[in-house]
Amino acid sequence: MAGKSLDGLSINLATVRKQWTFAEAVDACLRHGITAICPWRDQIADTGLKEAASIVRSNGVRLTGLCRGGFFPAPDAAGRATALDDNRRAVDEAAELGAACLVMVVGGLPAGSKDLPGARAQVVEGLAALMPHARAAGVPIAIEPLHPMYAADRACVNSLAQALDIAEAIGGPGIGAAIDVYHVWWEPSLAAQIARAGRMGAILAHHICDWLVPTRDLLNDRGMMGDGAIDLPGFRAMIEAAGFHGPQEVEIFSDHWWSRPGDEVLATCIERFRTVCRAAPSG
Amino acid sequence: MAGKSLDGLSINLATVRKQWTFAEAVDACLRHGITAICPWRDQIADTGLKEAASIVRSNGVRLTGLCRGGFFPAPDAAGRATALDDNRRAVDEAAELGAACLVMVVGGLPAGSKDLPGARAQVVEGLAALMPHARAAGVPIAIEPLHPMYAADRACVNSLAQALDIAEAIGGPGIGAAIDVYHVWWEPSLAAQIARAGRMGAILAHHICDWLVPTRDLLNDRGMMGDGAIDLPGFRAMIEAAGFHGPQEVEIFSDHWWSRPGDEVLATCIERFRTVCRAAPSG
Repeated sequence: MAGKSLDGLSINLATVRKQWTFAEAVDACLRHGITAICPWRDQIADTGLKEAASIVRSNGVRLTGLCRGGFFPAPDAAGRATALDDNRRAVDEAAELGAACLVMVVGGLPAGSKDLPGARAQVVEGLAALMPHARAAGVPIAIEPLHPMYAADRACVNSLAQALDIAEAIGGPGIGAAIDVYHVWWEPSLAAQIARAGRMGAILAHHICDWLVPTRDLLNDRGMMGDGAIDLPGFRAMIEAAGFHGPQEVEIFSDHWWSRPGDEVLATCIERFRTVCRAAPSG
Repeated sequence: MAGKSLDGLSINLATVRKQWTFAEAVDACLRHGITAICPWRDQIADTGLKEAASIVRSNGVRLTGLCRGGFFPAPDAAGRATALDDNRRAVDEAAELGAACLVMVVGGLPAGSKDLPGARAQVVEGLAALMPHARAAGVPIAIEPLHPMYAADRACVNSLAQALDIAEAIGGPGIGAAIDVYHVWWEPSLAAQIARAGRMGAILAHHICDWLVPTRDLLNDRGMMGDGAIDLPGFRAMIEAAGFHGPQEVEIFSDHWWSRPGDEVLATCIERFRTVCRAAPSG
């Protein structure tokens, strides 16, 4: 029963990165009845790719994504080539692990630059260059728009509208968006953009957490679902109306939750998933 | 000479609010050759409206705006009526002071609400209800889109595109936008939106500061021009190409700059205005 009812829940392993190794986190998720996860590349590297893939397969765990590729902009061509190589390796790792998509945090301004349109152009160029390899490997590329407060240093794709514009500009199959409530909940045209993403078949992942008031840190003060300002049932209803019924993936960067026992974090995720994350009835 | 060359500079008095009263700030600005300011209502109230208006007139000081009206959303009709009354008083104060516009920080979610579209509807309703009074008083209303990180608690208008959509929906003269580089520098369609604002005759103010990397506080870690990631000459070039040639108004919320002597802050504003804020040559 517990396993069945948690089919719609995935845990992004950043949520418990301070508590557990990859293997420990997989064990803990399974113990709680959670069978879908999204690991980070550094967690996989610490375990070793082959060992990690073996853990995934032997436990029948489903990967809703692999975090992350991206960080395309660089001050010079050599830097951009290095970034592209690393992204190709990320694609290979996602393929080896059977991840549903490779999540892209595209990168911000190159060091010393104030040219945001230029950085954005580099992102489009980098993604376009990566796509043949990603398509050959069968790994969908999920552009994750990040909150505008990360435009300078983490990602210069800052709205779902912009991510979809890029996916359309690159064209073809295998490119879409990872939609994280934290990053786009404020977007004025959110409803229209989610519907558009659905029509494009471009919803590759749905990440959840909450926006705390006040937010004390730009990076590591994200909230547990239900503790903040985001209408999660309304958001999920838009996602499902757009045709995406994959798991809701809990991704919480939080000094608070990283300080709690991992089992408490997972139990809280499950309780909140059951009580505050269901899609609101339509109409 | 100094006075002449500083015609394009205005100081929003939030920048020196911890150092000086309104009267002291006016004296200091004049001492530095700065003749345009934008005070806040609490600073005016502390001085007394009539006394403040007298200080403005007797010194020939130009007000590029009055900060701020707004905060329209409320949990109930009585709260919204109270907000509207307060906004009418803000209009009257702006008229008495001869301010070029009343800057609107529109407000976020009502207490306990997660209904962002609902809050946005309340903002449009409040602004529409205010406009007859503002037009009768001859006070232009400047909607200030605030950075999306303030959507929950300060302003649910979070892009220039959204502010212009609202101005268009309300229609008629006397409503436009205050464009602050800090809040909209990340906007993917920024160039198009500034050009659109120019065509609408809707650019009522141009605020400047900078986006620091890292940013340590969501509210009070804004940067001095030149210390951050924003292409200020490029931004100003778009503003001027759109037909706005009014002063650049320095508005910096910063625990750092509030801890410095006021004269040092003003001297730094002047030096940076002269060295890093000129419009980039076109073409």
